[in-house]
Parts: sequence; structure tokens; C-alpha cells
Amino acid sequence: MNEFEIIKHYFTVASHRKDVLMGPGDDCALLQVPPHSLLAVSTDTLVSGVHFFADMDPMALGHKALAVNLSDLAAMGADPCWVSLALTLPEVDESWIKGFCAGFFELAEYYNVALVGGDMTRGPLSITVTVHGTLPEGKGLRRNGARVGDGIYVTGTLGDAALGLQQVQGKVTVPEQYKDFVRTKFEHPHPRILAGQALRDIATSALDLSDGLAGDLAHVARASGMRAQLELEQLPLSAAMLATVSREQAWELALTGGDDYELCFTVPELYRGQLETALAHCGVKFTRVGRMLAGEPGVELTSKGRPYQLASQSWDHFRSV
Amino acid sequence: MNEFEIIKHYFTVASHRKDVLMGPGDDCALLQVPPHSLLAVSTDTLVSGVHFFADMDPMALGHKALAVNLSDLAAMGADPCWVSLALTLPEVDESWIKGFCAGFFELAEYYNVALVGGDMTRGPLSITVTVHGTLPEGKGLRRNGARVGDGIYVTGTLGDAALGLQQVQGKVTVPEQYKDFVRTKFEHPHPRILAGQALRDIATSALDLSDGLAGDLAHVARASGMRAQLELEQLPLSAAMLATVSREQAWELALTGGDDYELCFTVPELYRGQLETALAHCGVKFTRVGRMLAGEPGVELTSKGRPYQLASQSWDHFRSV
Repeated sequence: MNEFEIIKHYFTVASHRKDVLMGPGDDCALLQVPPHSLLAVSTDTLVSGVHFFADMDPMALGHKALAVNLSDLAAMGADPCWVSLALTLPEVDESWIKGFCAGFFELAEYYNVALVGGDMTRGPLSITVTVHGTLPEGKGLRRNGARVGDGIYVTGTLGDAALGLQQVQGKVTVPEQYKDFVRTKFEHPHPRILAGQALRDIATSALDLSDGLAGDLAHVARASGMRAQLELEQLPLSAAMLATVSREQAWELALTGGDDYELCFTVPELYRGQLETALAHCGVKFTRVGRMLAGEPGVELTSKGRPYQLASQSWDHFRSV
Repeated sequence: MNEFEIIKHYFTVASHRKDVLMGPGDDCALLQVPPHSLLAVSTDTLVSGVHFFADMDPMALGHKALAVNLSDLAAMGADPCWVSLALTLPEVDESWIKGFCAGFFELAEYYNVALVGGDMTRGPLSITVTVHGTLPEGKGLRRNGARVGDGIYVTGTLGDAALGLQQVQGKVTVPEQYKDFVRTKFEHPHPRILAGQALRDIATSALDLSDGLAGDLAHVARASGMRAQLELEQLPLSAAMLATVSREQAWELALTGGDDYELCFTVPELYRGQLETALAHCGVKFTRVGRMLAGEPGVELTSKGRPYQLASQSWDHFRSV
């Protein structure tokens, strides 16, 4: 196959969505947003050597490029619908493209997301994905809705992806039985779509954890104009984490490690029962890790009721516009 | 200013669009598509060294990155609404960003397009823009709607951008009085938004010219399942073009030069009067350059009624998915 054929072969995937009136191949995709719905849009770029290693398994990369974008829809409580893929490749390598597409489309099909367009260009390897979802009018889990007294919750366990990165880098020795688990957490994050949908009528705010709980939660605190107080003993840590590093190191990874793609959200005490029911219904584990307080916007760490100081800072990078 | 402040300063531009319920700064933008409308989406990536020279004036680049995307909306006949910008930069250079934003937002404001999100990452310079527009239900200028007997039309003049590129490369000597004109055509394309909107009820197919008329029109011929016959004597050529190269070279540039971002569209003979009125109304010049014929899908060049053979082929590159 020549490169046009390769691209046509791998990127032309039939979709069963009836709301795609025109998919890839014309100047624009034409899409039908359901009545009384809002459109939710998010874009993320992954650059080789910055966000992933150049030799990363292409199937894992295809999965991750879509997963980190779907995670943004999850954090808004939206239903995923359509995706555009802009792929910049140094060369057309059929086996690489095949792997990338396998990972990308497996996840896309799981959530019934249709690839509706994009661009393929030659250049240094990078991937920009734009996802589109819909939400009932009046809904949407924003960052600025937290209220004083709300509980702060997270899904899953924290810091495992950062531990997976350290394992790949040879900085830690993860016990044999946990090696695959942490590698999967790092390379194969699963967007919390169902949890996001379930939280639509319950949470007052939400975001997804991409840079570490401490830094990410600070966005909610700032946007909502209050303090977020975390109790470190409450942070959900995996058995893999506890078997590999000290509790203090685990907290550090949970608070400042990136790439977890779990949801962090706030819920009024009144809705605690409703929250239990809703998340049990979709089989997602969650943990209360703190509460919102009146005061100067920021994040406050406590251990056994006392202030706690982190050794490091959250990973710095350019931030989303 | 540090890099966060620079980004916040230059990329947080207030929009007056009431359909943006949440702009940049949350996990997703939240947008309201009007009732009985379709959503039109297009994505294009520009890579340094591939689509533009690394030292290109950032203001022109900011303009062009948005313009080439708006051109896709124009080719569909859509009304531009919202844009996401994924910018990958090797470093945060305030004067470069300032210039880029000046060019980008000048064009965005002209068409009342709101920046609703995106991503900013560190890496080799590249820009991915995703534009969103709306169209009345049932409308949309697709590539597959041409009918046998339709006239083939183009807006503006062709090949000037390619001539501008050759000027920058020192391959041609454009007469002094035309130097600025061809440079502007190359660096500062203007999307044919108004023409696209005016063509919604008249044209049977349309696309924008990004790779050269011969190659681009072949997409329409293939999608519509018929032949496109061009009369080379009809190709609209600028005074700058005619003063710089021979007529045969001019045809070559018009047919295979890229970056014109004019519209090419087909119209039934019956609607010729309506077409004159509609495009006169928005002040856009257009020219009939050929017609659609029954036969094997492809593009057929004629000069004085005889077949004409091009010396070169249209610029090859990866194509859009």
C-alpha cells in the first residue's frame, strides 16, 4: 500500500452514529447536536519527547491520545460523541499507524465516538485530538461551583501513573506482581466517563487529574474562591504504591504526580447518600479526601490534623488556554 | 511577565458571543448550537518547515493558521462561530506570541469567532486549529453534489499564492509594483466566508483550493462520479501573474500551486443569473472555468478545444483523514 492507501485503509472507520451527516473526506464534518443540548469541546496535544517517549508502544499511544481528551469530557459530565484527530508523523510507517489506530479506535468504539475528521501532516511526531460531547442544557460540571462545606472526592487511586513513569525510568523498583498494574495505569488511563455522567446532578464542581491532585485542586479552589483542605491519611493509595514506596513518597506522588486521569469533585454533605448510590451504580470506587473551607483560595494539606508541607511542587508546563 | 502570565494575557480575549456558556479555562468549552442547525467542524495543522518557513512573520502566521481553517467552513457554506487553538512552541517568546495573537485575533474578531479553548505545549513549532461553524439543517456544500452539465466556477484569481512562494524562494522576479500583492496572497489568504454563505442555495458542490485547482477539483469529480473539464483560457489570472511568467507557467501555477484558498464550486446553468446576483451582492469576483461531464471521474484540461497536458503534478502531501 502507498501512503494514501494506508491512511484511507486505517482511518476510514464506519460509524453507526446517525448524528454524523458527513464524516471525514469533505471540507468539514457535519454533525447534529440533539435539541436542548449543549456542545462540550476539548482539545489536547501530546508531543513526542514531552508528553510521551518517542518509542512508546503506538497502540498505547493511540489509546492515551483519545483517553486524555475523553477525560476532559468526563470531568464536565458530558456524553462523548465525535472526535477529530490531527496527526503529525515524521514518516508513514504502516505498522506504527496500524498499532496507533488499533488503540485509538478500540477506545472510540467502546464509547461510540465517531472519528469525523482531522489532518495528517509530515513533521515531528505529535498528536492533537479534539473531542466533542453533549450535555443536557443547564448541566455541566464546572470548576467554579464548589461551596463551603462540600466534601472533596476522588475516583480510583492516586499516583499510580506517576509510579508507572518512575518504573519506566528505572527510578523505582516495583514488586514483580505490581509491575503490569502500574505500567497500565501510566500507559493506558481509562477516562471516567460513566462517573462524570453520574455526577451531573450531584457534584458542585469537577475536574480531571492530569497534573496531580494538589495543583489541579488549586484550580477549583481559585475558580470557586475558597480553600480546599486535604487530609493526607485519606488519599486512596494502591497496594502497588504501598508495596513500593514510603507513605510520604506515596503522598508526594498522589499530590504532584501527573497522568492519573481520575476525577476530583466536590459534593454537598446533603448529597452523600445520593453520591454513594450513583457511583456504586456505575461500579466506580471513590474516596472522600477533604473539604472546602472559607478562606484565601488555595490548597491546604493536613496530616493528623496538622499542616503538612510537600517536598516538591506540581509538574510545571504550559497551561491550557 | 512569566510564561503563565503571558499566555493568560494574550489568549484570554473576551468574546461577545452569547452562545459561549463556558470559554477557555475549564475542562471543556460549553457551547450552544442554535436550534435547527448543523454543526460544521474542520481541523488543520500547520507544521514549521513543512507548511511555513520557521522565520515567517508571526502575525501573518497567526492570521494564516485561522484563515486556512475558516476557508474550510467557507467551502461548506457555514457561519463561523468558535475556534480551538493547539499551539506547540519551542519556547515562550513574548514578542512572537504577541504577533501571532495579533494576526489570529484580528481575523477572529472580523468574523466574530470566539476562541473557546485549546492547549499550549512545548515542542517543535506547530499549530492545530479546529473551527466550528453552523449551518441551517439540510444545507451544506458537499463535494459529491455536482451534476452533469453544471458549470465549474472559482472565486478570485488563481496561482498568486504559489507565485508569492516562488518570490520568497527567489525563483521568480516579480515586477516591483506587484511584489507586495503576491506576498500578501501567499501569507495573508482571506477565507471566502461571505461567498460560501451566498452559495448555500445555489451551488451543487464546493471546496476550497488548498493544493491547486487540478488536484482539488479531482476530489469533486471523484466524489460526484463524473468528469470535470477545464478550459485553460478561462482561468482567472492576476495582472501580477501575467507580468511575471508566461501564460503556460501561469496555468501551471493556477492548476497545481497551493495555498490559494479561493472557492471552487459547481452551479447548474439554470442558476446562473441567481449566482451573478448573489456573488455581486457580497462583492466577490468569480469566473466560469469549465463544466461537469458524464464519464470516467477525473479532471480534463483543454486549451482552444484540445486536450492539454500539464508538465508537473499537484503538490503531494499526506491527505486529510
